[in-house]
Amino acid sequence: MTLERLSEHACFGGLQGFYRMDSAACGGSMRFAVYQPPQARAGRVPVLYFLAGLTCTEETAAMKAGAQRVAAELGLMLVMPDTSPRETGFDGATGDWEFGEGAGFYLDATQAPWSSRFRMESHVVHELPAVVREHFPADPGRTGITGHSMGGHGALTLAIKHPQQYRSVSAFAPIVAPCEVPWGRKAFGRYLGDHHAVWAEHDACALVRRRPFGRPILVDQGLADKFLETQLQPERFEAACAEAGQSLTLRRHAGYDHGYYFIASFIQDHLRHHAAQLAD
Amino acid sequence: MTLERLSEHACFGGLQGFYRMDSAACGGSMRFAVYQPPQARAGRVPVLYFLAGLTCTEETAAMKAGAQRVAAELGLMLVMPDTSPRETGFDGATGDWEFGEGAGFYLDATQAPWSSRFRMESHVVHELPAVVREHFPADPGRTGITGHSMGGHGALTLAIKHPQQYRSVSAFAPIVAPCEVPWGRKAFGRYLGDHHAVWAEHDACALVRRRPFGRPILVDQGLADKFLETQLQPERFEAACAEAGQSLTLRRHAGYDHGYYFIASFIQDHLRHHAAQLAD
Repeated sequence: MTLERLSEHACFGGLQGFYRMDSAACGGSMRFAVYQPPQARAGRVPVLYFLAGLTCTEETAAMKAGAQRVAAELGLMLVMPDTSPRETGFDGATGDWEFGEGAGFYLDATQAPWSSRFRMESHVVHELPAVVREHFPADPGRTGITGHSMGGHGALTLAIKHPQQYRSVSAFAPIVAPCEVPWGRKAFGRYLGDHHAVWAEHDACALVRRRPFGRPILVDQGLADKFLETQLQPERFEAACAEAGQSLTLRRHAGYDHGYYFIASFIQDHLRHHAAQLAD
Repeated sequence: MTLERLSEHACFGGLQGFYRMDSAACGGSMRFAVYQPPQARAGRVPVLYFLAGLTCTEETAAMKAGAQRVAAELGLMLVMPDTSPRETGFDGATGDWEFGEGAGFYLDATQAPWSSRFRMESHVVHELPAVVREHFPADPGRTGITGHSMGGHGALTLAIKHPQQYRSVSAFAPIVAPCEVPWGRKAFGRYLGDHHAVWAEHDACALVRRRPFGRPILVDQGLADKFLETQLQPERFEAACAEAGQSLTLRRHAGYDHGYYFIASFIQDHLRHHAAQLAD
Protein backbone atom coordinates (compact mmCIF):
# COMPACT_ATOMS: atom_id res chain seq x y z
CA MET A 1 0.00 0.00 0.00
CA THR A 2 1.49 3.35 -0.96
CA LEU A 3 1.66 6.17 1.51
CA GLU A 4 1.97 9.84 0.68
CA ARG A 5 3.79 11.95 3.25
CA LEU A 6 2.05 15.35 3.51
CA SER A 7 4.15 16.84 6.31
CA GLU A 8 6.24 15.75 9.28
CA HIS A 9 7.18 17.81 12.33
CA ALA A 10 9.59 17.10 15.17
CA CYS A 11 7.58 17.07 18.40
CA PHE A 12 8.68 16.15 21.93
CA GLY A 13 11.62 14.20 20.56
CA GLY A 14 9.37 12.21 18.23
CA LEU A 15 7.63 12.92 14.95
CA GLN A 16 4.11 14.23 14.25
CA GLY A 17 3.21 13.38 10.66
CA PHE A 18 0.28 13.76 8.27
CA TYR A 19 -0.26 11.20 5.52
CA ARG A 20 -2.58 10.17 2.72
CA MET A 21 -3.37 6.62 1.59
CA ASP A 22 -5.51 5.01 -1.10
CA SER A 23 -8.52 3.53 0.63
CA ALA A 24 -10.39 0.60 -0.90
CA ALA A 25 -12.89 0.70 1.96
CA CYS A 26 -13.77 4.35 1.39
CA GLY A 27 -13.30 4.40 -2.38
CA GLY A 28 -10.79 7.21 -2.50
CA SER A 29 -7.86 8.74 -0.69
CA MET A 30 -8.00 9.06 3.09
CA ARG A 31 -5.88 11.24 5.32
CA PHE A 32 -4.58 10.32 8.75
CA ALA A 33 -2.07 11.53 11.32
CA VAL A 34 0.54 9.56 13.25
CA TYR A 35 2.65 10.58 16.22
CA GLN A 36 5.75 8.43 16.59
CA PRO A 37 7.30 8.72 20.06
CA PRO A 38 11.09 8.75 20.42
CA GLN A 39 11.00 5.08 21.53
CA ALA A 40 9.76 4.11 18.04
CA ARG A 41 13.27 4.61 16.68
CA ALA A 42 14.41 1.60 18.72
CA GLY A 43 11.64 -0.86 17.86
CA ARG A 44 7.92 -1.51 17.67
CA VAL A 45 5.76 0.33 20.21
CA PRO A 46 2.12 0.06 21.34
CA VAL A 47 -0.43 2.10 19.41
CA LEU A 48 -3.40 4.19 20.50
CA TYR A 49 -6.05 5.18 17.96
CA PHE A 50 -7.82 8.50 18.63
CA LEU A 51 -11.17 8.90 16.83
CA ALA A 52 -12.34 12.49 16.52
CA GLY A 53 -15.86 13.87 16.67
CA LEU A 54 -18.34 15.59 14.35
CA THR A 55 -16.79 18.25 12.04
CA CYS A 56 -13.23 17.24 12.97
CA THR A 57 -10.43 15.91 10.78
CA GLU A 58 -7.22 13.94 11.29
CA GLU A 59 -5.58 17.24 12.30
CA THR A 60 -7.85 18.21 15.17
CA ALA A 61 -6.55 16.03 17.98
CA ALA A 62 -2.96 16.32 16.72
CA MET A 63 -3.17 20.10 17.06
CA LYS A 64 -5.43 20.55 20.07
CA ALA A 65 -5.38 17.57 22.44
CA GLY A 66 -1.80 18.00 23.67
CA ALA A 67 -1.33 14.23 23.71
CA GLN A 68 2.18 14.05 22.26
CA ARG A 69 3.99 15.03 25.46
CA VAL A 70 2.71 12.06 27.46
CA ALA A 71 2.85 9.74 24.43
CA ALA A 72 6.56 10.60 24.20
CA GLU A 73 6.99 9.84 27.88
CA LEU A 74 5.12 6.52 27.69
CA GLY A 75 6.37 5.38 24.30
CA LEU A 76 2.89 5.25 22.75
CA MET A 77 2.29 5.75 19.04
CA LEU A 78 -0.85 7.79 18.28
CA VAL A 79 -2.90 7.23 15.12
CA MET A 80 -5.59 9.78 14.26
CA PRO A 81 -7.89 8.93 11.33
CA ASP A 82 -10.13 11.38 9.51
CA THR A 83 -13.82 11.28 10.49
CA SER A 84 -15.22 10.29 7.07
CA PRO A 85 -14.40 10.05 3.36
CA ARG A 86 -14.11 13.45 1.65
CA GLU A 87 -15.17 15.00 -1.64
CA THR A 88 -17.73 12.28 -2.19
CA GLY A 89 -20.02 14.47 -4.26
CA PHE A 90 -23.10 12.74 -2.80
CA ASP A 91 -26.23 14.84 -2.39
CA GLY A 92 -26.50 15.73 1.29
CA ALA A 93 -22.91 14.77 2.10
CA THR A 94 -21.93 18.35 2.92
CA GLY A 95 -23.69 21.29 4.50
CA ASP A 96 -24.96 19.39 7.56
CA TRP A 97 -22.43 19.14 10.36
CA GLU A 98 -24.25 16.17 11.93
CA PHE A 99 -24.25 13.91 8.87
CA GLY A 100 -22.11 12.97 5.87
CA GLU A 101 -18.59 14.28 5.42
CA GLY A 102 -17.03 14.87 8.85
CA ALA A 103 -19.69 12.60 10.39
CA GLY A 104 -18.94 9.03 9.34
CA PHE A 105 -19.93 7.51 12.71
CA TYR A 106 -17.25 4.78 12.36
CA LEU A 107 -19.61 2.28 10.73
CA ASP A 108 -19.99 0.68 7.29
CA ALA A 109 -23.09 2.19 5.67
CA THR A 110 -25.50 -0.27 4.07
CA GLN A 111 -27.70 2.24 2.22
CA ALA A 112 -26.97 3.79 -1.19
CA PRO A 113 -25.22 5.99 -2.00
CA TRP A 114 -23.41 5.99 1.35
CA SER A 115 -22.55 2.29 1.27
CA SER A 116 -20.07 2.79 -1.57
CA ARG A 117 -17.80 5.12 0.39
CA PHE A 118 -18.88 5.63 4.01
CA ARG A 119 -17.18 2.49 5.34
CA MET A 120 -15.25 3.91 8.28
CA GLU A 121 -15.46 0.74 10.38
CA SER A 122 -13.57 -1.24 7.74
CA HIS A 123 -11.16 1.65 7.26
CA VAL A 124 -10.34 2.14 10.94
CA VAL A 125 -10.40 -1.48 12.12
CA HIS A 126 -8.71 -3.27 9.22
CA GLU A 127 -7.36 -1.13 6.40
CA LEU A 128 -5.61 1.66 8.28
CA PRO A 129 -3.91 -0.66 10.82
CA ALA A 130 -2.43 -2.66 7.92
CA VAL A 131 -0.91 0.53 6.51
CA VAL A 132 0.31 1.61 9.94
CA ARG A 133 1.91 -1.78 10.51
CA GLU A 134 3.66 -1.66 7.14
CA HIS A 135 4.96 1.91 7.30
CA PHE A 136 5.46 2.63 11.02
CA PRO A 137 7.06 0.72 13.92
CA ALA A 138 3.71 -0.19 15.48
CA ASP A 139 3.11 -3.37 17.48
CA PRO A 140 -0.36 -4.43 16.31
CA GLY A 141 -0.68 -6.87 19.20
CA ARG A 142 -0.73 -3.90 21.57
CA THR A 143 -3.42 -1.59 20.20
CA GLY A 144 -5.83 0.61 22.16
CA ILE A 145 -8.56 2.98 21.04
CA THR A 146 -10.05 6.18 22.39
CA GLY A 147 -12.11 9.02 20.97
CA HIS A 148 -14.26 12.06 21.54
CA SER A 149 -18.05 12.42 21.17
CA MET A 150 -18.89 10.64 17.86
CA GLY A 151 -15.32 9.30 18.12
CA GLY A 152 -16.02 8.10 21.66
CA HIS A 153 -18.94 6.18 20.20
CA GLY A 154 -16.51 4.80 17.62
CA ALA A 155 -13.96 3.78 20.23
CA LEU A 156 -16.47 2.01 22.47
CA THR A 157 -18.33 0.19 19.72
CA LEU A 158 -15.26 -0.86 17.74
CA ALA A 159 -13.47 -2.11 20.86
CA ILE A 160 -16.46 -4.16 22.00
CA LYS A 161 -17.09 -5.54 18.49
CA HIS A 162 -13.45 -6.30 17.73
CA PRO A 163 -11.80 -7.35 21.00
CA GLN A 164 -9.15 -9.23 19.04
CA GLN A 165 -7.98 -5.86 17.65
CA TYR A 166 -8.11 -3.70 20.78
CA ARG A 167 -6.74 -4.44 24.22
CA SER A 168 -7.76 -1.14 25.83
CA VAL A 169 -10.51 1.43 25.38
CA SER A 170 -11.52 4.82 26.78
CA ALA A 171 -13.61 7.79 25.67
CA PHE A 172 -14.22 11.50 26.16
CA ALA A 173 -17.86 12.60 26.24
CA PRO A 174 -18.95 9.69 24.03
CA ILE A 175 -22.26 9.10 22.33
CA VAL A 176 -23.16 5.84 24.10
CA ALA A 177 -26.73 5.21 22.99
CA PRO A 178 -26.97 6.37 19.36
CA CYS A 179 -30.20 4.39 18.84
CA GLU A 180 -31.86 6.63 21.43
CA VAL A 181 -30.53 10.15 20.70
CA PRO A 182 -30.98 12.60 17.80
CA TRP A 183 -27.40 12.49 16.43
CA GLY A 184 -27.43 8.72 16.24
CA ARG A 185 -30.99 8.27 14.99
CA LYS A 186 -30.44 10.77 12.18
CA ALA A 187 -27.16 9.21 11.02
CA PHE A 188 -28.18 5.58 11.50
CA GLY A 189 -31.44 6.09 9.61
CA ARG A 190 -29.57 7.34 6.56
CA TYR A 191 -26.48 5.11 6.72
CA LEU A 192 -28.22 1.90 7.88
CA GLY A 193 -31.86 2.26 6.88
CA ASP A 194 -34.75 1.34 9.12
CA HIS A 195 -33.22 -1.88 10.41
CA HIS A 196 -33.08 -1.52 14.16
CA ALA A 197 -31.33 -4.84 14.70
CA VAL A 198 -28.50 -3.44 12.56
CA TRP A 199 -28.53 -0.19 14.51
CA ALA A 200 -27.92 -2.15 17.72
CA GLU A 201 -24.66 -3.47 16.21
CA HIS A 202 -23.38 0.10 16.49
CA ASP A 203 -24.73 1.08 19.91
CA ALA A 204 -22.29 0.87 22.82
CA CYS A 205 -25.03 0.25 25.39
CA ALA A 206 -26.60 -2.56 23.37
CA LEU A 207 -23.22 -4.07 22.55
CA VAL A 208 -21.82 -4.09 26.09
CA ARG A 209 -24.98 -5.74 27.41
CA ARG A 210 -24.49 -8.57 24.96
CA ARG A 211 -20.75 -8.97 25.27
CA PRO A 212 -18.69 -6.94 27.79
CA PHE A 213 -15.24 -5.74 26.75
CA GLY A 214 -13.77 -7.29 29.87
CA ARG A 215 -10.92 -4.96 30.68
CA PRO A 216 -11.71 -1.75 32.59
CA ILE A 217 -13.14 1.13 30.53
CA LEU A 218 -12.39 4.79 31.34
CA VAL A 219 -14.85 7.55 30.36
CA ASP A 220 -14.56 11.27 31.15
CA GLN A 221 -17.54 13.59 30.86
CA GLY A 222 -17.82 17.33 31.48
CA LEU A 223 -20.91 18.46 33.36
CA ALA A 224 -21.06 21.81 31.50
CA ASP A 225 -21.21 19.93 28.18
CA LYS A 226 -24.12 21.38 26.20
CA PHE A 227 -24.77 18.00 24.60
CA LEU A 228 -24.86 16.06 27.87
CA GLU A 229 -28.60 15.64 28.27
CA THR A 230 -29.75 15.53 24.66
CA GLN A 231 -27.05 13.48 22.93
CA LEU A 232 -24.65 11.87 25.41
CA GLN A 233 -26.54 10.54 28.46
CA PRO A 234 -23.61 8.64 29.99
CA GLU A 235 -25.89 7.24 32.68
CA ARG A 236 -27.23 4.87 30.02
CA PHE A 237 -23.76 3.36 29.57
CA GLU A 238 -23.20 3.31 33.32
CA ALA A 239 -26.38 1.25 33.73
CA ALA A 240 -25.55 -1.06 30.83
CA CYS A 241 -22.05 -1.74 32.18
CA ALA A 242 -23.45 -2.41 35.65
CA GLU A 243 -25.94 -4.91 34.20
CA ALA A 244 -23.26 -6.61 32.16
CA GLY A 245 -20.62 -6.71 34.88
CA GLN A 246 -18.35 -4.48 32.78
CA SER A 247 -15.83 -2.49 34.85
CA LEU A 248 -16.34 1.22 34.08
CA THR A 249 -14.74 4.31 35.57
CA LEU A 250 -17.03 7.21 34.60
CA ARG A 251 -15.63 10.51 35.84
CA ARG A 252 -17.95 13.53 35.85
CA HIS A 253 -16.12 16.86 35.83
CA ALA A 254 -17.93 19.97 37.05
CA GLY A 255 -17.50 23.01 34.82
CA TYR A 256 -15.97 21.28 31.78
CA ASP A 257 -17.60 21.59 28.36
CA HIS A 258 -17.50 19.49 25.18
CA GLY A 259 -14.36 20.94 23.60
CA TYR A 260 -10.65 20.26 23.36
CA TYR A 261 -9.77 22.28 26.49
CA PHE A 262 -11.66 19.52 28.32
CA ILE A 263 -9.85 16.78 26.40
CA ALA A 264 -6.42 18.36 26.91
CA SER A 265 -7.08 18.59 30.66
CA PHE A 266 -7.56 14.82 31.00
CA ILE A 267 -5.77 13.23 28.02
CA GLN A 268 -2.84 12.36 30.24
CA ASP A 269 -4.99 10.03 32.35
CA HIS A 270 -6.27 8.29 29.23
CA LEU A 271 -2.81 7.70 27.83
CA ARG A 272 -1.69 6.23 31.15
CA HIS A 273 -4.82 4.02 31.23
CA HIS A 274 -3.94 2.64 27.79
CA ALA A 275 -0.20 2.34 28.41
CA ALA A 276 -0.85 0.28 31.54
CA GLN A 277 -3.20 -2.11 29.73
CA LEU A 278 -0.95 -2.37 26.68
CA ALA A 279 2.14 -3.09 28.80
CA ASP A 280 1.16 -6.53 30.01
CA MET B 1 -13.22 49.77 30.24
CA THR B 2 -15.91 47.33 29.17
CA LEU B 3 -15.08 43.77 28.37
CA GLU B 4 -17.14 41.40 26.24
CA ARG B 5 -16.90 37.74 27.13
CA LEU B 6 -16.93 35.68 23.92
CA SER B 7 -16.43 32.24 25.47
CA GLU B 8 -14.92 30.61 28.55
CA HIS B 9 -13.80 27.00 28.95
CA ALA B 10 -12.69 25.07 32.02
CA CYS B 11 -9.12 23.91 31.40
CA PHE B 12 -6.69 22.18 33.80
CA GLY B 13 -8.66 23.41 36.79
CA GLY B 14 -8.54 27.01 35.56
CA LEU B 15 -10.36 28.98 32.87
CA GLN B 16 -9.44 29.61 29.22
CA GLY B 17 -11.39 32.62 28.00
CA PHE B 18 -11.76 34.72 24.86
CA TYR B 19 -12.69 38.39 25.13
CA ARG B 20 -13.22 41.57 23.16
CA MET B 21 -12.45 45.12 24.28
CA ASP B 22 -12.78 48.59 22.80
CA SER B 23 -9.30 49.74 21.85
CA ALA B 24 -8.45 53.44 21.67
CA ALA B 25 -4.94 52.55 20.53
CA CYS B 26 -6.17 50.50 17.57
CA GLY B 27 -9.31 52.49 16.83
CA GLY B 28 -11.74 49.59 17.10
CA SER B 29 -12.46 46.42 18.97
CA MET B 30 -9.60 44.04 19.76
CA ARG B 31 -9.81 40.41 20.76
CA PHE B 32 -7.57 38.66 23.25
CA ALA B 33 -7.38 35.41 25.20
CA VAL B 34 -6.64 34.87 28.90
CA TYR B 35 -5.87 31.68 30.76
CA GLN B 36 -6.54 31.98 34.49
CA PRO B 37 -4.82 29.23 36.50
CA PRO B 38 -6.62 27.71 39.49
CA GLN B 39 -4.46 29.82 41.84
CA ALA B 40 -6.13 32.97 40.44
CA ARG B 41 -9.25 32.16 42.48
CA ALA B 42 -7.28 32.85 45.66
CA GLY B 43 -5.58 36.11 44.71
CA ARG B 44 -3.48 37.97 42.18
CA VAL B 45 -0.99 35.89 40.21
CA PRO B 46 1.95 36.69 37.91
CA VAL B 47 1.17 37.18 34.22
CA LEU B 48 2.89 36.02 31.05
CA TYR B 49 2.04 37.65 27.72
CA PHE B 50 2.38 35.43 24.64
CA LEU B 51 2.69 37.32 21.33
CA ALA B 52 1.87 35.23 18.27
CA GLY B 53 3.42 35.36 14.82
CA LEU B 54 2.40 36.26 11.27
CA THR B 55 -1.13 35.10 10.27
CA CYS B 56 -2.00 34.09 13.84
CA THR B 57 -4.75 35.35 16.13
CA GLU B 58 -5.42 35.42 19.87
CA GLU B 59 -6.67 31.82 19.51
CA THR B 60 -3.57 30.25 18.02
CA ALA B 61 -1.39 29.79 21.08
CA ALA B 62 -4.39 29.07 23.30
CA MET B 63 -5.32 26.15 21.05
CA LYS B 64 -1.94 24.86 19.92
CA ALA B 65 0.86 25.68 22.37
CA GLY B 66 -0.27 23.42 25.20
CA ALA B 67 0.79 26.03 27.76
CA GLN B 68 -2.17 25.78 30.14
CA ARG B 69 -1.05 22.58 31.86
CA VAL B 70 2.20 24.09 33.16
CA ALA B 71 0.59 27.50 33.74
CA ALA B 72 -1.89 25.71 36.03
CA GLU B 73 0.95 24.01 37.85
CA LEU B 74 2.97 27.22 38.27
CA GLY B 75 0.08 29.60 38.92
CA LEU B 76 0.83 31.77 35.90
CA MET B 77 -1.86 33.73 34.08
CA LEU B 78 -1.44 33.75 30.29
CA VAL B 79 -2.54 36.69 28.13
CA MET B 80 -2.62 36.22 24.36
CA PRO B 81 -3.31 39.35 22.27
CA ASP B 82 -4.32 39.35 18.62
CA THR B 83 -1.53 40.13 16.12
CA SER B 84 -3.05 43.32 14.66
CA PRO B 85 -6.26 45.35 14.38
CA ARG B 86 -8.89 43.73 12.15
CA GLU B 87 -11.36 44.84 9.48
CA THR B 88 -9.46 48.06 8.93
CA GLY B 89 -10.56 48.41 5.33
CA PHE B 90 -7.18 49.93 4.38
CA ASP B 91 -5.86 49.22 0.90
CA GLY B 92 -3.21 46.53 1.23
CA ALA B 93 -4.21 45.52 4.76
CA THR B 94 -5.35 42.06 3.67
CA GLY B 95 -4.18 39.57 1.07
CA ASP B 96 -0.49 39.65 2.06
CA TRP B 97 0.36 37.35 4.97
CA GLU B 98 3.57 39.27 5.72
CA PHE B 99 2.00 42.71 6.15
CA GLY B 100 -1.13 44.41 7.49
CA GLU B 101 -3.84 42.48 9.30
CA GLY B 102 -2.26 39.54 11.11
CA ALA B 103 1.13 41.23 10.85
CA GLY B 104 1.15 44.22 13.18
CA PHE B 105 4.78 43.74 14.27
CA TYR B 106 4.00 45.05 17.78
CA LEU B 107 4.90 48.66 16.95
CA ASP B 108 3.03 51.96 16.61
CA ALA B 109 2.96 52.84 12.92
CA THR B 110 3.88 56.41 12.03
CA GLN B 111 2.79 56.39 8.37
CA ALA B 112 -0.75 56.96 7.05
CA PRO B 113 -3.08 55.17 6.89
CA TRP B 114 -1.50 52.60 9.25
CA SER B 115 -0.76 55.12 12.00
CA SER B 116 -4.46 55.54 12.81
CA ARG B 117 -4.99 51.89 13.75
CA PHE B 118 -1.80 49.80 13.67
CA ARG B 119 -0.63 50.76 17.16
CA MET B 120 0.08 47.36 18.65
CA GLU B 121 2.89 48.55 20.92
CA SER B 122 0.52 50.90 22.76
CA HIS B 123 -2.16 48.20 22.80
CA VAL B 124 0.07 45.45 24.19
CA VAL B 125 2.23 47.46 26.57
CA HIS B 126 -0.30 49.87 28.06
CA GLU B 127 -3.92 49.45 27.06
CA LEU B 128 -4.40 45.70 27.34
CA PRO B 129 -2.58 45.37 30.70
CA ALA B 130 -4.92 48.01 32.15
CA VAL B 131 -7.91 45.94 31.08
CA VAL B 132 -6.33 42.74 32.36
CA ARG B 133 -5.61 44.38 35.70
CA GLU B 134 -9.17 45.63 36.00
CA HIS B 135 -10.98 42.44 35.00
CA PHE B 136 -8.65 39.60 36.03
CA PRO B 137 -6.65 38.78 39.18
CA ALA B 138 -3.31 39.72 37.59
CA ASP B 139 -0.37 41.11 39.53
CA PRO B 140 0.99 43.78 37.15
CA GLY B 141 4.22 44.03 39.13
CA ARG B 142 5.05 40.47 38.07
CA THR B 143 4.67 40.48 34.28
CA GLY B 144 6.72 38.56 31.73
CA ILE B 145 6.54 38.39 27.94
CA THR B 146 7.29 35.75 25.34
CA GLY B 147 6.35 35.16 21.72
CA HIS B 148 6.91 33.32 18.49
CA SER B 149 8.55 34.57 15.27
CA MET B 150 7.08 38.08 14.73
CA GLY B 151 5.82 37.71 18.29
CA GLY B 152 9.32 36.79 19.47
CA HIS B 153 10.45 40.07 17.92
CA GLY B 154 7.62 41.74 19.84
CA ALA B 155 8.57 40.10 23.13
CA LEU B 156 12.26 40.98 22.87
CA THR B 157 11.78 44.58 21.70
CA LEU B 158 8.97 45.44 24.10
CA ALA B 159 10.82 43.94 27.08
CA ILE B 160 14.01 45.83 26.30
CA LYS B 161 12.15 49.11 25.61
CA HIS B 162 9.83 48.85 28.62
CA PRO B 163 11.81 47.18 31.42
CA GLN B 164 9.49 48.78 33.98
CA GLN B 165 6.65 46.68 32.53
CA TYR B 166 8.38 43.31 32.07
CA ARG B 167 10.51 41.40 34.53
CA SER B 168 11.17 38.38 32.31
CA VAL B 169 11.44 37.69 28.59
CA SER B 170 11.91 34.73 26.26
CA ALA B 171 11.18 33.89 22.62
CA PHE B 172 10.61 31.05 20.16
CA ALA B 173 12.28 31.44 16.75
CA PRO B 174 12.17 35.25 16.98
CA ILE B 175 12.88 37.81 14.30
CA VAL B 176 15.84 39.52 16.00
CA ALA B 177 17.14 41.87 13.31
CA PRO B 178 14.09 43.17 11.42
CA CYS B 179 16.12 46.04 9.94
CA GLU B 180 18.24 43.48 8.10
CA VAL B 181 15.75 40.82 6.89
CA PRO B 182 12.94 40.83 4.31
CA TRP B 183 9.99 40.48 6.73
CA GLY B 184 11.16 43.40 8.83
CA ARG B 185 12.28 45.67 5.99
CA LYS B 186 8.97 45.26 4.18
CA ALA B 187 6.84 45.95 7.26
CA PHE B 188 9.00 48.72 8.72
CA GLY B 189 9.16 50.56 5.38
CA ARG B 190 5.38 50.74 5.23
CA TYR B 191 4.59 51.23 8.92
CA LEU B 192 7.51 53.55 9.77
CA GLY B 193 8.61 55.10 6.48
CA ASP B 194 12.23 55.49 5.44
CA HIS B 195 13.48 56.59 8.85
CA HIS B 196 16.14 54.11 9.81
CA ALA B 197 16.74 55.66 13.21
CA VAL B 198 13.09 54.89 13.98
CA TRP B 199 13.48 51.36 12.65
CA ALA B 200 16.28 50.77 15.14
CA GLU B 201 13.82 51.48 17.97
CA HIS B 202 12.09 48.23 16.98
CA ASP B 203 15.11 46.01 16.34
CA ALA B 204 16.08 43.63 19.16
CA CYS B 205 19.75 43.55 18.15
CA ALA B 206 20.03 47.34 18.01
CA LEU B 207 18.09 47.77 21.24
CA VAL B 208 20.05 45.27 23.31
CA ARG B 209 23.33 46.81 22.22
CA ARG B 210 22.15 50.15 23.55
CA ARG B 211 20.47 48.96 26.72
CA PRO B 212 20.59 45.32 27.82
CA PHE B 213 17.52 43.85 29.49
CA GLY B 214 19.64 42.71 32.41
CA ARG B 215 17.93 39.51 33.47
CA PRO B 216 18.70 36.30 31.55
CA ILE B 217 16.92 35.84 28.21
CA LEU B 218 15.87 32.41 26.91
CA VAL B 219 15.52 31.78 23.16
CA ASP B 220 14.68 28.46 21.45
CA GLN B 221 15.30 27.94 17.75
CA GLY B 222 14.63 24.92 15.54
CA LEU B 223 17.37 24.05 13.06
CA ALA B 224 14.87 22.69 10.48
CA ASP B 225 13.04 26.05 10.50
CA LYS B 226 12.63 27.11 6.87
CA PHE B 227 12.92 30.78 7.86
CA LEU B 228 16.13 30.34 9.86
CA GLU B 229 18.63 31.72 7.36
CA THR B 230 16.52 34.28 5.51
CA GLN B 231 14.43 35.85 8.27
CA LEU B 232 15.58 34.81 11.74
CA GLN B 233 19.38 34.66 11.94
CA PRO B 234 19.62 34.18 15.70
CA GLU B 235 23.42 34.46 15.53
CA ARG B 236 22.91 38.21 15.13
CA PHE B 237 21.19 38.40 18.52
CA GLU B 238 23.77 36.09 20.04
CA ALA B 239 26.53 38.47 18.92
CA ALA B 240 24.65 41.57 20.07
CA CYS B 241 24.02 40.08 23.52
CA ALA B 242 27.66 39.05 23.82
CA GLU B 243 28.77 42.60 22.96
CA ALA B 244 26.31 44.11 25.39
CA GLY B 245 27.00 41.73 28.24
CA GLN B 246 23.40 40.48 28.10
CA SER B 247 22.93 36.96 29.46
CA LEU B 248 21.34 34.84 26.72
CA THR B 249 20.56 31.13 26.59
CA LEU B 250 20.07 30.34 22.89
CA ARG B 251 19.13 26.70 22.40
CA ARG B 252 19.36 25.24 18.89
CA HIS B 253 17.19 22.16 18.35
CA ALA B 254 18.06 19.77 15.53
CA GLY B 255 15.06 18.67 13.44
CA TYR B 256 12.50 21.17 14.77
CA ASP B 257 10.66 23.48 12.38
CA HIS B 258 8.89 26.83 12.76
CA GLY B 259 5.49 25.60 13.88
CA TYR B 260 3.52 24.97 17.03
CA TYR B 261 4.72 21.35 17.42
CA PHE B 262 8.10 22.99 18.10
CA ILE B 263 6.60 25.51 20.51
CA ALA B 264 4.58 22.86 22.37
CA SER B 265 7.73 20.77 22.81
CA PHE B 266 9.53 23.51 24.72
CA ILE B 267 6.83 25.79 26.17
CA GLN B 268 7.24 24.15 29.56
CA ASP B 269 10.83 25.40 29.83
CA HIS B 270 9.74 28.94 28.97
CA LEU B 271 6.98 29.00 31.57
CA ARG B 272 9.42 27.77 34.21
CA HIS B 273 11.94 30.44 33.11
CA HIS B 274 9.31 33.14 33.61
CA ALA B 275 7.85 31.72 36.82
CA ALA B 276 11.31 31.67 38.39
CA GLN B 277 12.02 35.30 37.46
CA LEU B 278 8.55 36.47 38.48
CA ALA B 279 8.71 34.73 41.85
CA ASP B 280 11.37 36.92 43.45
